[in-house]
Amino acid sequence: MDVGTYVHNVGRQARAAARVIAKADTATKNRALKEMAAAIARSRKELLEANARDLQEARKQQLDSAMIDRLTLTPKVIAAMADGLKQIAALRDPVGEITELRKRPSGIRVGKMRVPIGVVAIIYESRPNVTADAAGLCVKSGNAAILRGGSEGIHSNLAIAACVHAGLRVAGLPESVVQVIETTDRAAVGELITLQDAVDVIVPRGGKSLIARLMRESRIPMIKHLHGVCHTYIDDKADLKKAIRIADNAKTQRLGTCNTMETLLVARGVAARVLPPLARIYLEKGIELRGDGEARRIVPEMKPATEEDWYTEYLGPILSVRVVKDLDEAMDHIATYGSQHTDAIVTEDKARARRFLREVDSSSVMVNASTRFADGYEYGLGAEVGISTDKLHARGPVGIEGLTSLKWVVYGTGQIRK
Amino acid sequence: MDVGTYVHNVGRQARAAARVIAKADTATKNRALKEMAAAIARSRKELLEANARDLQEARKQQLDSAMIDRLTLTPKVIAAMADGLKQIAALRDPVGEITELRKRPSGIRVGKMRVPIGVVAIIYESRPNVTADAAGLCVKSGNAAILRGGSEGIHSNLAIAACVHAGLRVAGLPESVVQVIETTDRAAVGELITLQDAVDVIVPRGGKSLIARLMRESRIPMIKHLHGVCHTYIDDKADLKKAIRIADNAKTQRLGTCNTMETLLVARGVAARVLPPLARIYLEKGIELRGDGEARRIVPEMKPATEEDWYTEYLGPILSVRVVKDLDEAMDHIATYGSQHTDAIVTEDKARARRFLREVDSSSVMVNASTRFADGYEYGLGAEVGISTDKLHARGPVGIEGLTSLKWVVYGTGQIRK
Repeated sequence: MDVGTYVHNVGRQARAAARVIAKADTATKNRALKEMAAAIARSRKELLEANARDLQEARKQQLDSAMIDRLTLTPKVIAAMADGLKQIAALRDPVGEITELRKRPSGIRVGKMRVPIGVVAIIYESRPNVTADAAGLCVKSGNAAILRGGSEGIHSNLAIAACVHAGLRVAGLPESVVQVIETTDRAAVGELITLQDAVDVIVPRGGKSLIARLMRESRIPMIKHLHGVCHTYIDDKADLKKAIRIADNAKTQRLGTCNTMETLLVARGVAARVLPPLARIYLEKGIELRGDGEARRIVPEMKPATEEDWYTEYLGPILSVRVVKDLDEAMDHIATYGSQHTDAIVTEDKARARRFLREVDSSSVMVNASTRFADGYEYGLGAEVGISTDKLHARGPVGIEGLTSLKWVVYGTGQIRK
Repeated sequence: MDVGTYVHNVGRQARAAARVIAKADTATKNRALKEMAAAIARSRKELLEANARDLQEARKQQLDSAMIDRLTLTPKVIAAMADGLKQIAALRDPVGEITELRKRPSGIRVGKMRVPIGVVAIIYESRPNVTADAAGLCVKSGNAAILRGGSEGIHSNLAIAACVHAGLRVAGLPESVVQVIETTDRAAVGELITLQDAVDVIVPRGGKSLIARLMRESRIPMIKHLHGVCHTYIDDKADLKKAIRIADNAKTQRLGTCNTMETLLVARGVAARVLPPLARIYLEKGIELRGDGEARRIVPEMKPATEEDWYTEYLGPILSVRVVKDLDEAMDHIATYGSQHTDAIVTEDKARARRFLREVDSSSVMVNASTRFADGYEYGLGAEVGISTDKLHARGPVGIEGLTSLKWVVYGTGQIRK
């Protein structure tokens, strides 16, 4: 069978399975999730063996150590996968909820019902635990899932899929509710992103080149973000102790995450007081600082920042620093160079905080907190399938609710339109 | 200036204007709306003159009478435009509302703020009143608008735009909050739908060929529907009087609207009782009936329906009719042939009604009511910018709230991620 036919069949089966999982009750879905967790726990040996095959191949292909690290399953990672599924089982099921029911002058009652989106395709690289996480989130939200992991993790992903299928079977659900693309042929992704009739949304998780390619080529809506150029603005009404703690944490707590601060903006009025102690912390932690002229006059250790720096998501030990006149100049900078991901202000001035929250057009806006909090678990979503910087549908961390949509329900007693 | 440069400049100005209108307060936006209405009311003569130029050209080009009808401004249509803007001014402003604020274990408080989408481009044909409606909805929801009407209405649209600009000016808002594309060059649409940096969402309103073209070519998300193949299913537990009234209204109250029923499904158990009286009503009203074999045995006047009929949105005096075994067969038919727009069940059985509402995957699902109710005004939205059959973001009639999105807001007191 050629790849096009294979992927087309997967899509057709997913569409049929979507109708079944959409109407499954909460108890059935939770049973499937718990049985998946049990299957993963008792298949530790098989999972490690499958993963060993992937790792052997990865080393042969000389994949870089970061990639091999992400690819590696350990007994701890396996236990975390099983735990994650049990946690998803414990989350509230939003499917079927009816809200905002109102009686209209015509006599009909109109409301909104939360329903699954339908078929969700998740395209990811490296981490095999995404297979279990994504399967769990889709099942709980009543969606059928098509999972396409990177070729480097194919044996691990198929072994995890076997556990997922075991869970679905015990709960009386069709295995086709969660399908893993079994071929490593790269053409499969190209086929998947054009299955407009069979796939409702694509969630890409991976490197920028993958996301950028999908943005160019996909004919199906995506829940995604490309860049995470996150800012912290230290206002001249900031509590400087808080400011230093937050700016330190936002950059250095983890360097490679999308919600890590990449540019620090400091109000002129406090720059001379806050930049020297902050620079000391950063330089001690090995962070390279790149500043504008004014910042460099205060901290001569800074290298000069170029125009390109303000646009750059370093995902590493570099921070760009700019001194700005005031809140307006800070917000102008963010509007010009930001990626609408996560931006924070540090200030004790309530009116300025309100303006920042209202006017900065990012998926998460924060007052007096580290940008690192932009995360599904920290926000209380229980789990996240990804982070979106798009304006439509779900923005920011996307959990179970982001995998659902609202349709209109109308209750009549024989009403007709006049 | 070439079209590409012109449209690019429009986009750049819209992006800048979006930041201004996004932060405008409710009173300012309402003032602009009321002043637009006043300008339209006092410009009746200019509007009729501009429209006369369009109509003269349309007759010269021998546009069909339906198109000329939609293009025509009358004193009544002009008064309705002004009224529409006043009604939008009276609607609640959702922008800036914060909901679901919860304290998290880390100490941060997390909630969601309703915010404008940014820049909305509306591409439409013929009806000049869309210019005023769309401008009003975008201003109220805090969005900048780019309006591209059909070339046949260019003089009318520019005259209405002058009134919109007068209203914006009086309220102290930049005219670039609402821009009408001033060229009738068809290449402008092609440019507009690729302005990914400047336009956040496109709302196409017009014929199927326009929508289908935009679906193929747009690189920007759309709020749209292509087909409206709406069904009414008469269950064997239906109140047959209600069923006849609803099925009559759903088809015949207006023939050319997207929420008009195109296919009637009737349960076998009541077909012999409900189809003859219904057929009499339809045939008296000049509706051509196309049935499956079973329906034709009951009503011999029906022509045979082909497979193609079940997929067809007639938008005219034709109805396809099928006898089905039960609710499941009805829902299978809708899943196979429907367009996920609006579907209704007539039944007195609560469990079956619940199943229909839950399992039929359409933007509006109804019990014991005419599909013709799927409309922004009937649902209480005040006005609608369009109807969406997409799964993400807004489904069904889209009003002011559908032109907004939710971003995350985080209130901290110095919290950092551990």
